[in-house]
Amino acid sequence: MDKAKTRVETDQIGSRELPADALYGIHTLRALENFPIACRKVNPELVKAYGWVKLACAQINRKLAYFPDAQKADAIEQACHEMASGLLMDAVLVDALQGGAGTSTNMNVNEVIANRALQLLGKPLGSYQLISPLNDINRHQSTNDTYPTALKLAAIVQLHHLEQWVLELQEAFQQKEKAFSNIVKIGRTQLQDAVLTTLGREMATYAEALNRDRWRIYKCEERLRVVNLGGTAIGSGLGAPRQFIFQVTDRLRELTNTSLARAENLMENTQNTDVFIEVSGILKACAGTLIKIANDLRLMSSGPDAGFGEINLPVQQAGSSMMPGKVNPVIPEAVIQASTQVMGNDQIIAQAAASGNLELNHLMPLIADKLLESIQLLQRATSIFSSKCIHGLTANPEKCRQHVLNSTAVITALVAELGYEKCSQITQRATARNQTIRELILKEKLLSPDEFDTLISPERVNKLGF
Amino acid sequence: MDKAKTRVETDQIGSRELPADALYGIHTLRALENFPIACRKVNPELVKAYGWVKLACAQINRKLAYFPDAQKADAIEQACHEMASGLLMDAVLVDALQGGAGTSTNMNVNEVIANRALQLLGKPLGSYQLISPLNDINRHQSTNDTYPTALKLAAIVQLHHLEQWVLELQEAFQQKEKAFSNIVKIGRTQLQDAVLTTLGREMATYAEALNRDRWRIYKCEERLRVVNLGGTAIGSGLGAPRQFIFQVTDRLRELTNTSLARAENLMENTQNTDVFIEVSGILKACAGTLIKIANDLRLMSSGPDAGFGEINLPVQQAGSSMMPGKVNPVIPEAVIQASTQVMGNDQIIAQAAASGNLELNHLMPLIADKLLESIQLLQRATSIFSSKCIHGLTANPEKCRQHVLNSTAVITALVAELGYEKCSQITQRATARNQTIRELILKEKLLSPDEFDTLISPERVNKLGF
Amino acid sequence: MDKAKTRVETDQIGSRELPADALYGIHTLRALENFPIACRKVNPELVKAYGWVKLACAQINRKLAYFPDAQKADAIEQACHEMASGLLMDAVLVDALQGGAGTSTNMNVNEVIANRALQLLGKPLGSYQLISPLNDINRHQSTNDTYPTALKLAAIVQLHHLEQWVLELQEAFQQKEKAFSNIVKIGRTQLQDAVLTTLGREMATYAEALNRDRWRIYKCEERLRVVNLGGTAIGSGLGAPRQFIFQVTDRLRELTNTSLARAENLMENTQNTDVFIEVSGILKACAGTLIKIANDLRLMSSGPDAGFGEINLPVQQAGSSMMPGKVNPVIPEAVIQASTQVMGNDQIIAQAAASGNLELNHLMPLIADKLLESIQLLQRATSIFSSKCIHGLTANPEKCRQHVLNSTAVITALVAELGYEKCSQITQRATARNQTIRELILKEKLLSPDEFDTLISPERVNKLGF
Amino acid sequence: MDKAKTRVETDQIGSRELPADALYGIHTLRALENFPIACRKVNPELVKAYGWVKLACAQINRKLAYFPDAQKADAIEQACHEMASGLLMDAVLVDALQGGAGTSTNMNVNEVIANRALQLLGKPLGSYQLISPLNDINRHQSTNDTYPTALKLAAIVQLHHLEQWVLELQEAFQQKEKAFSNIVKIGRTQLQDAVLTTLGREMATYAEALNRDRWRIYKCEERLRVVNLGGTAIGSGLGAPRQFIFQVTDRLRELTNTSLARAENLMENTQNTDVFIEVSGILKACAGTLIKIANDLRLMSSGPDAGFGEINLPVQQAGSSMMPGKVNPVIPEAVIQASTQVMGNDQIIAQAAASGNLELNHLMPLIADKLLESIQLLQRATSIFSSKCIHGLTANPEKCRQHVLNSTAVITALVAELGYEKCSQITQRATARNQTIRELILKEKLLSPDEFDTLISPERVNKLGF
Repeated sequence: MDKAKTRVETDQIGSRELPADALYGIHTLRALENFPIACRKVNPELVKAYGWVKLACAQINRKLAYFPDAQKADAIEQACHEMASGLLMDAVLVDALQGGAGTSTNMNVNEVIANRALQLLGKPLGSYQLISPLNDINRHQSTNDTYPTALKLAAIVQLHHLEQWVLELQEAFQQKEKAFSNIVKIGRTQLQDAVLTTLGREMATYAEALNRDRWRIYKCEERLRVVNLGGTAIGSGLGAPRQFIFQVTDRLRELTNTSLARAENLMENTQNTDVFIEVSGILKACAGTLIKIANDLRLMSSGPDAGFGEINLPVQQAGSSMMPGKVNPVIPEAVIQASTQVMGNDQIIAQAAASGNLELNHLMPLIADKLLESIQLLQRATSIFSSKCIHGLTANPEKCRQHVLNSTAVITALVAELGYEKCSQITQRATARNQTIRELILKEKLLSPDEFDTLISPERVNKLGF
Repeated sequence: MDKAKTRVETDQIGSRELPADALYGIHTLRALENFPIACRKVNPELVKAYGWVKLACAQINRKLAYFPDAQKADAIEQACHEMASGLLMDAVLVDALQGGAGTSTNMNVNEVIANRALQLLGKPLGSYQLISPLNDINRHQSTNDTYPTALKLAAIVQLHHLEQWVLELQEAFQQKEKAFSNIVKIGRTQLQDAVLTTLGREMATYAEALNRDRWRIYKCEERLRVVNLGGTAIGSGLGAPRQFIFQVTDRLRELTNTSLARAENLMENTQNTDVFIEVSGILKACAGTLIKIANDLRLMSSGPDAGFGEINLPVQQAGSSMMPGKVNPVIPEAVIQASTQVMGNDQIIAQAAASGNLELNHLMPLIADKLLESIQLLQRATSIFSSKCIHGLTANPEKCRQHVLNSTAVITALVAELGYEKCSQITQRATARNQTIRELILKEKLLSPDEFDTLISPERVNKLGF
Repeated sequence: MDKAKTRVETDQIGSRELPADALYGIHTLRALENFPIACRKVNPELVKAYGWVKLACAQINRKLAYFPDAQKADAIEQACHEMASGLLMDAVLVDALQGGAGTSTNMNVNEVIANRALQLLGKPLGSYQLISPLNDINRHQSTNDTYPTALKLAAIVQLHHLEQWVLELQEAFQQKEKAFSNIVKIGRTQLQDAVLTTLGREMATYAEALNRDRWRIYKCEERLRVVNLGGTAIGSGLGAPRQFIFQVTDRLRELTNTSLARAENLMENTQNTDVFIEVSGILKACAGTLIKIANDLRLMSSGPDAGFGEINLPVQQAGSSMMPGKVNPVIPEAVIQASTQVMGNDQIIAQAAASGNLELNHLMPLIADKLLESIQLLQRATSIFSSKCIHGLTANPEKCRQHVLNSTAVITALVAELGYEKCSQITQRATARNQTIRELILKEKLLSPDEFDTLISPERVNKLGF
Repeated sequence: MDKAKTRVETDQIGSRELPADALYGIHTLRALENFPIACRKVNPELVKAYGWVKLACAQINRKLAYFPDAQKADAIEQACHEMASGLLMDAVLVDALQGGAGTSTNMNVNEVIANRALQLLGKPLGSYQLISPLNDINRHQSTNDTYPTALKLAAIVQLHHLEQWVLELQEAFQQKEKAFSNIVKIGRTQLQDAVLTTLGREMATYAEALNRDRWRIYKCEERLRVVNLGGTAIGSGLGAPRQFIFQVTDRLRELTNTSLARAENLMENTQNTDVFIEVSGILKACAGTLIKIANDLRLMSSGPDAGFGEINLPVQQAGSSMMPGKVNPVIPEAVIQASTQVMGNDQIIAQAAASGNLELNHLMPLIADKLLESIQLLQRATSIFSSKCIHGLTANPEKCRQHVLNSTAVITALVAELGYEKCSQITQRATARNQTIRELILKEKLLSPDEFDTLISPERVNKLGF
């Protein structure tokens, strides 16, 4: 490197040159060299949340007179704000999968905030005797309390967004429920023709399942809101003043408009990560719902000629070059892929969370990466599902009716009127003569066309019991 | 078979001989032949719960005058009661993993109740024209509503038991918290000596984590209580009278002293199984807690000479024939195995639940088998964990103290008194001279023995912050 | 217990009464009390394999003059033989999931063989001064070498059986390949009508996939054949004479007619369990194949009226009480459940295998239980799949042809003859006029009926390229 | 967009503006809008492999006279070459997780090659009447044959790299085997002191396990080399000339210096993805090995004062701000995280592979993404493991010896000399008097210091049996 364009920083291991204009410092450099693992950067939402955590700490440190120099305190706070707003993301470079339980992320954030504050004060980058990443930005903190706190904050914020996307998808299905309420069709159990239902009821079912997912996602904040900020290394608060410990989480809560609360037992909250298993389990339930619905849509739109053909998915891109006009269910397929990955992530999170030892879980970065990825995968999957698939979904009422009339399953709708015995005989005769049930019944004048159609009308089919 | 000792039953496929005294019938026989898969019978708790479901149905059918013959109704109710009490378990033989979404379990239960009722009335087994498995015992029901209802009921009951076992384990740790409150020891992060803590605080941490598990398990009933009984085949209630649908779940709730409630949307509740993913996810979180704790105990009892050696697990069986006196942490090892299986079961449940198609999930028996197995594995794991390991757990205070005095990590307890700089120098000098921190400090008269010991006293170590 | 009916045994912990006629001893009793976890006994195939291991050890010990008393040696050998033949299974009672890396299984086997040998000699049970479970039956052995050796042997034997069942299933599909070779049908990609194929080719595809599974299963023996017998506690052979170490595996190989071989590096072979991950991965691939095929059959038999309806699965049991004549794909459903469990077991095995520490994997019993269970689940799944589903599978040639004629996808078979442009126009016209492709083509005399039918003949459809 | 800076392209859905200088086309644009899912681009190695596939196809098409214009053919081949070399990566933008079984990746590649070829010919981008993405670049191909072929090729190439990294790691351990061959230490089973071994033997064990992984990875090519190129949509080769089908895979093999071969049964090879489960299972076995080793290193370097402290990991970055001098095992922690993700990816791959339906697996992009990610995670994990951890690993021979002398487990090394009975008594006396075994034995003159030290010498400890 050109000496003029570099600066030198020193840590416990030795000295290293950095680009003169780098907002990050030597600890980040070490991490970049140590962890070329995922080859993706730390999730930006975690970095933003870390910005809020650092801001809360800085404000309480200032309040408790640990930052007597107001100008310096102002600069630090502004830098924290910028971090929280995502403005310093270009300088947070460490790999998503890093050893050290998150130390490298914390140090990268500390270094960038310190240097950005120095920059704001017009000081040379690296003047850590003025503003120190460790003594100032990390003051009264440890990776072991700030990292899980930032993760929980990031997850809460992202879960709120997810909740909205799930709601949109739910509402999209509710619109289809109304639109398709009069389309009677064959209900299938074990993929076999069973009894009648309506396409509207099926859409309502999807909406209802998503409503439950939405509620569960909403309740996740309760599981994540208790944090160990102030606990420092192992939750005993060693090195932090009691005032700081008692005030910092409240400040973070105010800053972020969430319901964050300090854990009663900071030591416990520091070492255990079971809440991430629980939240991931809830995301997995949502993934299960999405896979089920997406597969139903694939089935119902299958064919269209040699398949179920009951609905049409909107065309989002050309299908095949060999088969003119072929349209593939690409959006449900994408939804299934995102959801399947969420299921795999859940295993990763659980295995990592169960691997904690004694006072800390050393695999926190993996947990953080996969948890936030799962939330975001579901955000994106639900978003395209509603906007690019459900909104444009149309029905094939003709095919649905044809199925009803062709299927011997229609007989189940007549049992209440004609009795089980007679219905059984009709079914056998119809099959033997290769007639549809309706044809045979009308021919044998067992029912008038009107009577028959009333028995398979949406009103009758949707009626609960008899 | 000896004709005298057989009876003949007939189904849609044909006729078959059964042992004359068999309480089960032809549908059970078919299932036995079709599904030699798990080679384990259906979980008895599911069968008992099915007994309650059948009883509730029978009572409402009687109330609605579908069973005008009081003697017959009495016999059916008693047979249901016996099923619910586990008295008829010998005749419920179908395999745990069966095709058909649970049909074989339902039919086995129907047949046994019918035959037992016939037996009570002094009638020959198989006299289904008097009491029919299908027309009487299964009246106004389908596998598709009774099976998931029975599963939810069984799970709720078993989760209550689990809650108690988790509580016992929590209390066992709380006793150790008190007993070990004065034992100062090295806390470790990433397995490296970090800062001081007490063995009591560590025990408290385990108790607190289990407390959270207990709460989550307690809340599972909320997730499972909404059932689709009355919905029959696909949740439309087809074939069932509205009175039956509206009353049967209330009766089941009263009979079982649970909080069961009828789903608003029976169709949705019939086809979706995401609640089982959610509950399994909560069990997985508990499994994660248990694995973490069990591994901590393995670590702390490791050695004992060439390991951590801080605690002693009670001896439950001889260790090795080659190594006299070797004691292995067999109970934590068993706990880890049970918990690891719960984690794998969670994947099975999720994959099966996500595989549902349209109006039904065809893999219900797998979900049921794994969900109940997971609950019971955790019951047994927590039970032996408290009774055979935690209660008899003892500490090695001497080894703990020796670790504290030998470790340079003790210096973290002195920083507040001596300052970071001086502490750093002391550490370096001690390492260089191969002395312990305490030896050096006393020799250099930086602190008196009393002062030193006060700084590493339980009171000081347990104090939050400074 | 009635004293007359009990005997007393003593271990390092103390003395205990046992039933006087119990073939097992005090170590088994302790294990029964310690591990009520799975509430299933150790897999019988593991016990039988353990019998062979004990026999090989006994024979080499005898050969090396460690058993100078021929009568005693004979009795021990016969008892081992009986264990290997499954005759002593009633006395092997320990739980499948036990702590202690398999110690309890080894001791249960040792005790039963010792007592059975005593019995054969007419001596009182428990006369361990004559024949000792530890000093005789376990001589020159440890749980840590005998247990994994027995597991590998059991797995090899069971995999051979599995291979046969997979072959049978493959052959069943090959029969259908021939039977259905002339049935032209719509091939579907992404569930959408694509291009023509034959039902026979589809069956051939399943056979081919199973052929690959069979080959992989066959090759598993290579992965499992290297064992650590003779390595005793950690693979250093401590306590065992070199002659014993060098001869015992050869003897075991001869006795079992397998290809077992002694590991070069016994220490490595003792502590690592990655081969079980590898073998389980191969079982998972087979499970994946089975799930794929079973789902295809569910799809192709769906409806039958309102679904694909291309094939009929043989009726194995009555379907629904509400829907007369409904037949469910219960065998494919059972196959999917078994296979899904194999997938979950794979995760359990991998997590357990990765959890080994230093000189041993402490979770061996979990690995053993799940590995053997997976093999057996696949045995049973493939067995019922061929015997109860594929053999009786029939085609609906009429429905297949109807699909071909109704589907616009048929046009892909005409492109080579008519050109892409013309085909595109035909498709559009046919769709617009709601005619089938064939109707339009014949009406417009673009092709004669014969020409059309030749283009969609099995010969043409099955021809590779043009 | 500024009209001057855009061009217009049209597909079946309609027309769209693209940046005038975009090498990609309208299909890519649709995909970018449809699939904002992973928010990562397709793995570059898959894109490069796709370049080779397209090149082989172009060359055979030229040879068979489908590209009569030599200039055009030259341009296409050069563009394919550039794609294969990674030079066009900036224009391959589609998301890693896309619906459509890979269609969007194929089309993105087709469009970029076509436009790059046009550019080379000095023609305007988008002049598809001259060089068409579909009619030229995709000629005689389908996504369904090119995509899995490219994936297999990419995986083979990456597995070769992985094999080298595993070899390097193996060799690193072999160096330590030699370096530490004389360091006698306590071997531990179930974390309990067991019998003596050497640190060198432990290192040899890791090397041996990695050797097995390396062999398995080497053998993966056999599993992946059979491809379906030429099979087009469903493996029937529809639309492709037979000459093309028979020649194209040979050409691809020559171009890539691999062992690729055309599948006998192209239809089977098109729809089944079990080989990816198998290969992923092998990667999972390797991940298991790495987790086991990494955890062993964490254990052996634990403390260092209050832990095992037998080895020192090289310092790669500062540990804690609170605990001066604390060094964390960050590299093993990173290795564990990468490996844990590989385990989760395996579940994703298996679930996706088992989800295929009929003639195609619709989740191919997920399988591709996770398979290549797993290989690369293991590449990076093994790379940093050797370079940043094992090479700099040092032993604490003093601590190892101290453990040996302090531990009662040392007695197992004396049994052969002193007999089991005497050894048992010595152990008890030593424990009672709080003396080490060695102290007691020397004091009681049971052995001379030399005799004692000979019995625990590396030569003796490493000797197999007696």
